[in-house]
Amino acid sequence: MVTSAQFGDGVAYVAGQYVPIAQASIPITDWGFLRSDATYDVVTVWDGAFFRIDAHLERFLKSCNRWRLNPGLSPAQITRVLSRCVRLSGLRSAYVEMICTRGQPPWGSRDPRQAVNRFYAFAVPYVWLANEQQRASGLHLMISDVQRIPARSVDPKAKNYHWNDLTMGLFGALDAGADTVVLVDGAGHVVEGPGFNVFCVKDGAVATPDAGMLEGITRRTVIEMARTLGIALQERPVTEQELRTADEVFLSTSGGGVLPVTRVDGQAIGNGTPGAVTGRLVDTYWAWHADPGYTLPVDYGP
Amino acid sequence: MVTSAQFGDGVAYVAGQYVPIAQASIPITDWGFLRSDATYDVVTVWDGAFFRIDAHLERFLKSCNRWRLNPGLSPAQITRVLSRCVRLSGLRSAYVEMICTRGQPPWGSRDPRQAVNRFYAFAVPYVWLANEQQRASGLHLMISDVQRIPARSVDPKAKNYHWNDLTMGLFGALDAGADTVVLVDGAGHVVEGPGFNVFCVKDGAVATPDAGMLEGITRRTVIEMARTLGIALQERPVTEQELRTADEVFLSTSGGGVLPVTRVDGQAIGNGTPGAVTGRLVDTYWAWHADPGYTLPVDYGP
Repeated sequence: MVTSAQFGDGVAYVAGQYVPIAQASIPITDWGFLRSDATYDVVTVWDGAFFRIDAHLERFLKSCNRWRLNPGLSPAQITRVLSRCVRLSGLRSAYVEMICTRGQPPWGSRDPRQAVNRFYAFAVPYVWLANEQQRASGLHLMISDVQRIPARSVDPKAKNYHWNDLTMGLFGALDAGADTVVLVDGAGHVVEGPGFNVFCVKDGAVATPDAGMLEGITRRTVIEMARTLGIALQERPVTEQELRTADEVFLSTSGGGVLPVTRVDGQAIGNGTPGAVTGRLVDTYWAWHADPGYTLPVDYGP
Repeated sequence: MVTSAQFGDGVAYVAGQYVPIAQASIPITDWGFLRSDATYDVVTVWDGAFFRIDAHLERFLKSCNRWRLNPGLSPAQITRVLSRCVRLSGLRSAYVEMICTRGQPPWGSRDPRQAVNRFYAFAVPYVWLANEQQRASGLHLMISDVQRIPARSVDPKAKNYHWNDLTMGLFGALDAGADTVVLVDGAGHVVEGPGFNVFCVKDGAVATPDAGMLEGITRRTVIEMARTLGIALQERPVTEQELRTADEVFLSTSGGGVLPVTRVDGQAIGNGTPGAVTGRLVDTYWAWHADPGYTLPVDYGP
């Protein structure tokens, strides 16, 4: 018997059933685990509505296609599953993940074409990449010497769980007293961090890397907000030095939108407080959450 | 109620319990899945005995250490768990995997240092990388243009589930009619394939890549066998062209030992049949399985 208290911690969709998140599991033999042969996407619910769910579904299906995975559900069907996870949880703000794994070929076969792919989803309380104090004062970002897995090995534009480089970089940053980390491309440029894209501002103009990183939906939102607000923004290689000497630095993520960075490798950025351009983008990000053009209300039922 | 028939398909150790492999699962929220933040090792049982379990345990603990994972069990304790999995399954020949995952930090935290790591294991029937016909006639290997994830991103010497590049390369090889695939380093060299190291023989001398790949225990066994048999063997960069123009090509893997390759990219290697050096190594590999210095009998109980 499942109580609403158990559902309140989060709800997962596993093998066609809705279960409390604490009971949600995947077979240990699923190649999604044993070979990290899977893709996923994360959409958020804020104030009772999905934000940009169409963009996330479109990217999820592109990622599936790139890895030759078939979730077996249409975008409308996925939306119904995600909505039901949120509805059962009762959460008004949620972090909602959809996943497709390879499954497993018949025992003894190593042919991924023979596997029946599996679809999973879950909704849990909204996950912030930065806590309240960090959102107010700005994050301390470390530039790692770990290189992000290059596109010629794993296409970063299709979401995947190949995060060892990001996790090892994060360990290094946390040990050094920083809050999070950005990885590099080995040619002097920053690329992305664990769950976010990175931006810098100099003389009022914004720049963000154009290669080697995930094309985040929140990154896309920042680009669209900049256009709307009349802020110059370039997608181009961004050097480590540019980041260190920027007037402002910020991150974009589904885990909190636009997040200010006020220190890089221990040195203050600008005057060491969140900057004006960052502030305008933060405000606009949350304002857009009230725009019916970007939101889909969750049906919480009667 | 678990029947011995269910255990006969394989047995897993999950959360301190022994369960039939079909019921074995990991929490969907374990970073081992959601960030592929895990390590593993595979030891085989042949004719009722583990082969080189000490070497596999040593490497497993090195891999754990490299990724800052703690399985929470000593080598002796791990051996007991693996033995019990095999014993419960009743399998005389088995593929035995030990796994350590990050687990998950307290909800809302993204600090991997706060996670309690988890240990899993399972024993299933012996997995062959090549079927009987392929072992007799030789495999058809394709050289992929996919580059193996480089060491500066993810250290290949510590085992990990970052296999997207290997899996995408495998899709390409299978689609092209080959049996399996070897990836490259982007500088004209072959490195490794999905679950195996690669070797070529020219004028009686063996060569195998020395960088960018896992240091397989079976690879080590091949090196030791070559020394014992008086066969010259070099660990050094091996070019794609060397592989194509070799007298013999073979693979080393826990999934079948030494496996002959008789075609590369559709072209016959040597006279198109498994070569003499390969044959000597195959024979020695299986002969060593009867050597008490390399084996540990499984206690199948009364």
